[in-house]
Amino acid sequence: MDEKDIRVLLEAVQKGRLSAKRATERLKNLPFEDLGFAKIDHHRSLRQGYPEVIFARGKTPKQVTAIVRGMLRAKSSHNILITRADGKMLAAVRRLTRAAKMHPLSGTITIRRNNITHGKGLIVVVTAGTADIPVAEEALVTAEMMGNRVEALYDVGVAGLHRLTENRAKLAAARVIICVAGMEGALPSVVAGMVAVPVIAVPTSTGYGASFGGLTALLAMLNSCASNVSVVNIDNGFGAGCVASVINHL
Amino acid sequence: MDEKDIRVLLEAVQKGRLSAKRATERLKNLPFEDLGFAKIDHHRSLRQGYPEVIFARGKTPKQVTAIVRGMLRAKSSHNILITRADGKMLAAVRRLTRAAKMHPLSGTITIRRNNITHGKGLIVVVTAGTADIPVAEEALVTAEMMGNRVEALYDVGVAGLHRLTENRAKLAAARVIICVAGMEGALPSVVAGMVAVPVIAVPTSTGYGASFGGLTALLAMLNSCASNVSVVNIDNGFGAGCVASVINHL
Amino acid sequence: MDEKDIRVLLEAVQKGRLSAKRATERLKNLPFEDLGFAKIDHHRSLRQGYPEVIFARGKTPKQVTAIVRGMLRAKSSHNILITRADGKMLAAVRRLTRAAKMHPLSGTITIRRNNITHGKGLIVVVTAGTADIPVAEEALVTAEMMGNRVEALYDVGVAGLHRLTENRAKLAAARVIICVAGMEGALPSVVAGMVAVPVIAVPTSTGYGASFGGLTALLAMLNSCASNVSVVNIDNGFGAGCVASVINHL
Amino acid sequence: MDEKDIRVLLEAVQKGRLSAKRATERLKNLPFEDLGFAKIDHHRSLRQGYPEVIFARGKTPKQVTAIVRGMLRAKSSHNILITRADGKMLAAVRRLTRAAKMHPLSGTITIRRNNITHGKGLIVVVTAGTADIPVAEEALVTAEMMGNRVEALYDVGVAGLHRLTENRAKLAAARVIICVAGMEGALPSVVAGMVAVPVIAVPTSTGYGASFGGLTALLAMLNSCASNVSVVNIDNGFGAGCVASVINHL
Amino acid sequence: MDEKDIRVLLEAVQKGRLSAKRATERLKNLPFEDLGFAKIDHHRSLRQGYPEVIFARGKTPKQVTAIVRGMLRAKSSHNILITRADGKMLAAVRRLTRAAKMHPLSGTITIRRNNITHGKGLIVVVTAGTADIPVAEEALVTAEMMGNRVEALYDVGVAGLHRLTENRAKLAAARVIICVAGMEGALPSVVAGMVAVPVIAVPTSTGYGASFGGLTALLAMLNSCASNVSVVNIDNGFGAGCVASVINHL
Amino acid sequence: MDEKDIRVLLEAVQKGRLSAKRATERLKNLPFEDLGFAKIDHHRSLRQGYPEVIFARGKTPKQVTAIVRGMLRAKSSHNILITRADGKMLAAVRRLTRAAKMHPLSGTITIRRNNITHGKGLIVVVTAGTADIPVAEEALVTAEMMGNRVEALYDVGVAGLHRLTENRAKLAAARVIICVAGMEGALPSVVAGMVAVPVIAVPTSTGYGASFGGLTALLAMLNSCASNVSVVNIDNGFGAGCVASVINHL
Amino acid sequence: MDEKDIRVLLEAVQKGRLSAKRATERLKNLPFEDLGFAKIDHHRSLRQGYPEVIFARGKTPKQVTAIVRGMLRAKSSHNILITRADGKMLAAVRRLTRAAKMHPLSGTITIRRNNITHGKGLIVVVTAGTADIPVAEEALVTAEMMGNRVEALYDVGVAGLHRLTENRAKLAAARVIICVAGMEGALPSVVAGMVAVPVIAVPTSTGYGASFGGLTALLAMLNSCASNVSVVNIDNGFGAGCVASVINHL
Amino acid sequence: MDEKDIRVLLEAVQKGRLSAKRATERLKNLPFEDLGFAKIDHHRSLRQGYPEVIFARGKTPKQVTAIVRGMLRAKSSHNILITRADGKMLAAVRRLTRAAKMHPLSGTITIRRNNITHGKGLIVVVTAGTADIPVAEEALVTAEMMGNRVEALYDVGVAGLHRLTENRAKLAAARVIICVAGMEGALPSVVAGMVAVPVIAVPTSTGYGASFGGLTALLAMLNSCASNVSVVNIDNGFGAGCVASVINHL
Repeated sequence: MDEKDIRVLLEAVQKGRLSAKRATERLKNLPFEDLGFAKIDHHRSLRQGYPEVIFARGKTPKQVTAIVRGMLRAKSSHNILITRADGKMLAAVRRLTRAAKMHPLSGTITIRRNNITHGKGLIVVVTAGTADIPVAEEALVTAEMMGNRVEALYDVGVAGLHRLTENRAKLAAARVIICVAGMEGALPSVVAGMVAVPVIAVPTSTGYGASFGGLTALLAMLNSCASNVSVVNIDNGFGAGCVASVINHL
Repeated sequence: MDEKDIRVLLEAVQKGRLSAKRATERLKNLPFEDLGFAKIDHHRSLRQGYPEVIFARGKTPKQVTAIVRGMLRAKSSHNILITRADGKMLAAVRRLTRAAKMHPLSGTITIRRNNITHGKGLIVVVTAGTADIPVAEEALVTAEMMGNRVEALYDVGVAGLHRLTENRAKLAAARVIICVAGMEGALPSVVAGMVAVPVIAVPTSTGYGASFGGLTALLAMLNSCASNVSVVNIDNGFGAGCVASVINHL
Repeated sequence: MDEKDIRVLLEAVQKGRLSAKRATERLKNLPFEDLGFAKIDHHRSLRQGYPEVIFARGKTPKQVTAIVRGMLRAKSSHNILITRADGKMLAAVRRLTRAAKMHPLSGTITIRRNNITHGKGLIVVVTAGTADIPVAEEALVTAEMMGNRVEALYDVGVAGLHRLTENRAKLAAARVIICVAGMEGALPSVVAGMVAVPVIAVPTSTGYGASFGGLTALLAMLNSCASNVSVVNIDNGFGAGCVASVINHL
Repeated sequence: MDEKDIRVLLEAVQKGRLSAKRATERLKNLPFEDLGFAKIDHHRSLRQGYPEVIFARGKTPKQVTAIVRGMLRAKSSHNILITRADGKMLAAVRRLTRAAKMHPLSGTITIRRNNITHGKGLIVVVTAGTADIPVAEEALVTAEMMGNRVEALYDVGVAGLHRLTENRAKLAAARVIICVAGMEGALPSVVAGMVAVPVIAVPTSTGYGASFGGLTALLAMLNSCASNVSVVNIDNGFGAGCVASVINHL
Repeated sequence: MDEKDIRVLLEAVQKGRLSAKRATERLKNLPFEDLGFAKIDHHRSLRQGYPEVIFARGKTPKQVTAIVRGMLRAKSSHNILITRADGKMLAAVRRLTRAAKMHPLSGTITIRRNNITHGKGLIVVVTAGTADIPVAEEALVTAEMMGNRVEALYDVGVAGLHRLTENRAKLAAARVIICVAGMEGALPSVVAGMVAVPVIAVPTSTGYGASFGGLTALLAMLNSCASNVSVVNIDNGFGAGCVASVINHL
Repeated sequence: MDEKDIRVLLEAVQKGRLSAKRATERLKNLPFEDLGFAKIDHHRSLRQGYPEVIFARGKTPKQVTAIVRGMLRAKSSHNILITRADGKMLAAVRRLTRAAKMHPLSGTITIRRNNITHGKGLIVVVTAGTADIPVAEEALVTAEMMGNRVEALYDVGVAGLHRLTENRAKLAAARVIICVAGMEGALPSVVAGMVAVPVIAVPTSTGYGASFGGLTALLAMLNSCASNVSVVNIDNGFGAGCVASVINHL
Repeated sequence: MDEKDIRVLLEAVQKGRLSAKRATERLKNLPFEDLGFAKIDHHRSLRQGYPEVIFARGKTPKQVTAIVRGMLRAKSSHNILITRADGKMLAAVRRLTRAAKMHPLSGTITIRRNNITHGKGLIVVVTAGTADIPVAEEALVTAEMMGNRVEALYDVGVAGLHRLTENRAKLAAARVIICVAGMEGALPSVVAGMVAVPVIAVPTSTGYGASFGGLTALLAMLNSCASNVSVVNIDNGFGAGCVASVINHL
Repeated sequence: MDEKDIRVLLEAVQKGRLSAKRATERLKNLPFEDLGFAKIDHHRSLRQGYPEVIFARGKTPKQVTAIVRGMLRAKSSHNILITRADGKMLAAVRRLTRAAKMHPLSGTITIRRNNITHGKGLIVVVTAGTADIPVAEEALVTAEMMGNRVEALYDVGVAGLHRLTENRAKLAAARVIICVAGMEGALPSVVAGMVAVPVIAVPTSTGYGASFGGLTALLAMLNSCASNVSVVNIDNGFGAGCVASVINHL
């Protein structure tokens, strides 16, 4: 259900074809569809401009499929995004729709129902190393599914500054930058110092020993000496994609 | 030095009044003024649209004054912002300029040199409790000094939802929201679920015991189930104000 | 052994059919049955109104079966509850009694020996997300086996407040609420603000990155700004069910 | 404002002396009184049976006084409780009302406006050591101000079990027990094993070295092998008193 | 090599059959046998009264076998103890000597070469629960191999004090007590309060959630309010057995 | 009250001068004297051979004095030990008895009532550095007050092994060693490798940065590769003195 | 590309065979080869004297092979080092070059293209135990591939000082020492006290319980009381080898 | 005592003026002078080329003075360095020698007894911000007192790369670099990528909130993606100066 549907409903009320009471009831009941174990929030896309999203980890394949079925049933034109999924889930979802596509590095499944780009500028996703790419991919796919133009710039960590400075143009082209790094998490500080746009920092669990599963990168990013940096959870490519998209739609 | 100055300089080169070599030299030397113990970055305002900022904690009053003097000497029209300062610093700074003004809850000193509003929309700063106001004030003052319209909404914590829902209109008016909370840090999740704009979450060291100086609020905000939330450091009102302003200038 | 058995024994003493000394000896020996590796506490149900409970993790299937056999031998009418068990244990226990039933999401095995409801009111178990259901199930099953009426309300996290507010009636019907959430653990604060009954908060290890296996949710709940909230261990559905039941029997 | 006031208002509507619209407006505006920096929640006592409470730490004396003035202005008969206050605040509050009384160990200020006992049973507050008494006092005073009968049992730590077992009768008399302990936090497990009522465990920051400001006691209590234990924040005597009172009013 | 061997060598020197220089050389070289990847410390048993010990985890089966072969070659009468071993290691060691015996709960392999009891009193090993038995077994076997009389007392956790108080006699018989507990780690405090002998506390990784792999029990034991308690590493049954034995040999 | 008193009382019963019932009553009441805020455990010295001890931190001077008065009233011959006290407490205690003596580095107050040495051997207290001496002094004074011969060996940290090896004789003379160290806490491993007696390791909060108030030393000691080491809390000189004394009395 | 290549290029410019502009272009493009997912930094060996290195963990075998192919294509004479690899990667790499050799304990693959020793002195790698050897091997292999003479000294932990003191000569021969230890991490302090050269300390994840995956050893090493010690990440044999080599080339 | 003194002594032995036994005795006694509470290590300067050093924190002014007196008495020509001292200590030390000089930012006192430069190259000390200067000063002074040429480069944090790149020449001139930074601790990675010499990273406690007293900077530096970086303790300017000096003397 989107804005048009709501307009139609309200006009029906205006023209007396629908009582205010029943319209109220229907609008009130609309926000979510109750599957018992889950409540699909069809309204969120309306409220927040998001695709419909399923965080698959911690859910059974059966639960994921039931939610997807509910989303497809709603016949909206919003894209569907399933994060942290695996091969079994893909197989199950593909039995519902052939449009389901797996992005293997990040375990993201996408079901495209529109290709409209409404984000205003370019979102650039930068990584410090090769091992950070899966998280970057999740961010990229998320931002794309939310209607943004995106571009990637990989393996430009701070110990070899020339790799970064030679790509200055790409950074300058961005309206929002997502900066993905593990280990010491220094990349966002350096990148943010080179631009005047918001930088969303994503720590990754890349590394070992005292990287403590991404905690070090997270803490470093929170202490960035650059002041156009804000941070999301470790490995949270999805969140970074969302935040970037919300900003890019302003 | 701002864009106009640079244009003037470049035209001088164009017209042959200044050799390319000397112009290069001058531009190269411009970025910062070296005081030995500190390098004032006059260019950052140009590069990033920031006021000139001094983080006073960890600096001696003498160092702070020297930096302010350098900034005033530059005769730019940028505002000057000194964060985490105390009464002694205010006294010292006021000997340099009567324009210095203390915001006592947050220990921020401001030196206004222009009153232009170039941020596009409204930034709303929300707090969960009264004890979060000092951090909120730092964010408010920062955003204001960077040319934004700002508004405050205080003491609307999640255990009394009606306080929040009754101010829904104020939230809806915002282009960017800064959400300041200590203790369990739940406010950003709830606020972010009510709007479709970016929410910058600021954990505060408010609380005691297992709040661990703001760590709990920080972790909670990083794990927000709302996906339009990004986070800055504990008590970092300045950072939140900057990020919000950078977004609001897009 | 329950209160009736004790009364019979004491009457035997009164009527001179049993010497005080032997009765003392017997009562003294009653509290537990010593299996060497474990001491079954038959008295606890008497003392605390609990079913007989086995925490299976860290025990071998052989040890679990031996304890169940001891409990069945005692011929009491108390229900038997085995938490954190697996399929092998179920198979082994079912060889002792066909009444054993597995609740697969939480790995709980129940052996019903009575169906009496003596808890005074309704216990409602609320979850923030679908991934929290296994812990909620453990709480539900525990509370049921201890003689309480229970009801579930799943997937009502705080980023979509309408899902919660539309179920206000269900919350209002509860005498005790168990609130299960991972990630930022904000649900108990919001729920507790909507009711005037005790809320038992259960953090779950749901989440990733800076959720640190449930630590974030735990800390958030301990810092709840609502003051009718108390907390149990991460993933401790059993404990929450017990506490709720003890309260509901007051 | 309490239930009676609301009934009066609704009857005025019923009898046509007040339009529904204005009544709605008034009820809607009632929940809190907006002081700008704080929103007094007059409705909470109605919703949750609490006294009006101010957490003083992090507030200026001026802010505390303004809130108390607002509470007194409301002319309700609810008790007023100010926690974590100091001598200066007492002096300021006493200028508003001579009824203000300081409990010096815990820094609690109470303003009694009624003496009614509506809690159903006895709340017993137990401490492991002498150094835990300030937190226990906060719990005691809170529970008393909320209309409960309370009793104290101090310095009965587990390394001298006889001190505890000789007070078994006092424990048996309780409907709810609050158990306050620092250091290894073992007391709640032992006490809870001796009774069949809910035990609210309060870790204290008593101790040194690896007690880590109460963290050790907190963790120990969360891992209690007794299953009628739930936990509140470190040093949170107020929270424990509230939870105990809410339970005691069931 | 033991004291007798050394006496023989020294007498040879006294009688002139061995030059002082060569004797020195030999004694100097004796302390350890260098296998390259490991240095077997044959002298330690002499210096400290220990059996020869191999900590198997982190070593390859091949390395373990090579060390055992070196120990057997030394033809001393000391017992050999291999901790944290697995089935493969047992098979390999049994090819060297049929005397090797596996203790399966703890993964300890013992090779008895003497049965002498030289410890002065009884060492009692107490556990809070059944899941703590593997660690207790490691302590028991270690103390036994070091020449001590040992006894076990299992599953006497503090939430059912009667299980503990009914075994008071067994505790009173001990010269040293080893106290093994996970979860809240409260047992050592209670046990130590009942006796006047040293209590060695061993935290175990038993538990889940906020037990943090035994950290909670460890911290609790370090903060014990009983002052005859000292602590070893989490799951360190071997260390506890050693410390108890060293004390029991005084 | 000590063993002799009890014998007298029991003989009175035997000779019929005291009824069993009254004797029971008296013995039952003896264990502690209830001051309300504290319960003095006169029996502990009997049960555990300890002096009467007051941990002063967290108690008011008034509370400390009241406890000392109760101890003095009991007219036993046990020594009295007050740890973590300050000058004010000394002044107050000296008004009760001129025998009170302050040990200023550690803030220990002692009241000698006997000078008997019943510990069997020598306790040596070793420190890594000069800054560890206050904790060592607390251990020394405690062990002395409990009837042990003690000796100190200070400033023999492991980065200058010769300081340690040259004092090998002193170490060899000890029946129990207390090893006090901050920073990396390596001393106990090295010392324990040089002797065959129990080593009680005491981490201190000496150090800065990543010593985290003694946590590093504590963790290091718990992971000691020497197996005759057990550990007490950070800065817990008192506990180390107690454990050493209990061992030295075996 | 190495210094000679650059000289040739510059001479071509000097002699007019290459325009300055094109030379600039080529030099600018040289630093790295862009594979999209990775940027091979051919210049680093020139800038820093390193071999070309691939950190394999977190990369797919396909990515690793592609990078190796790029390195081989560059036809430089630098050695190639792949750390944290597995058998599959070895197989894949061996299809590119038969020179690839696996070091199985550490999972390091080396491709030798020169055997020159240009480090000035000897690097000695010391371990506390046998379980630390894999990390030591990574350090040894790294230092060797970077052109240094290396030697190993294994299993000389501090609880048996004689093992260390008898190898004093080996330590004295070193120009740089790498010191690898888990558990309490005390070895670097003792070793550093015996020599006057830099000691690079490498904590390992060897140990269990409160070793917390090497954190304890790391913290201990950072707090070393010896002042010629600096530290690298847990298990970072590669880093230690690099630092030692860079020092050894001074 | 230095090498010359030892040579003299040995020649006396050679020439028969001193018996080997007495010479041995004297050398054996030389290493340290025992003040009871401290053992001055006169030999360390000989063994390790250090000045005589006192870490003042945790020592009383009286203890510091006594150690300085012992050092001065030894009449060696080594410099004396007192770190973490305060004004009172300076006053006390100046009563012993007028040569004592305070470096106020770092609280270092120096007593120069020679001005010889024997370090081979230049040590450059770099800081990220002005607040890091106190720690940098401690490193600078330490390195200078150990006979090195030193230079400072302050306030060149990574968010303004131009400040760093414009000082490339200064970095290139260094034989060893000390890199001091708080907050996100990113500077060492960037600096180390620009040079081929060893970089000693010093985290500082500069910052607030999630900088956790320097922990974040420490962790970031340990995870540096540059491999010529090793790390010392938080705020450990002294250690960094020592390590750099030891390297610079190779």
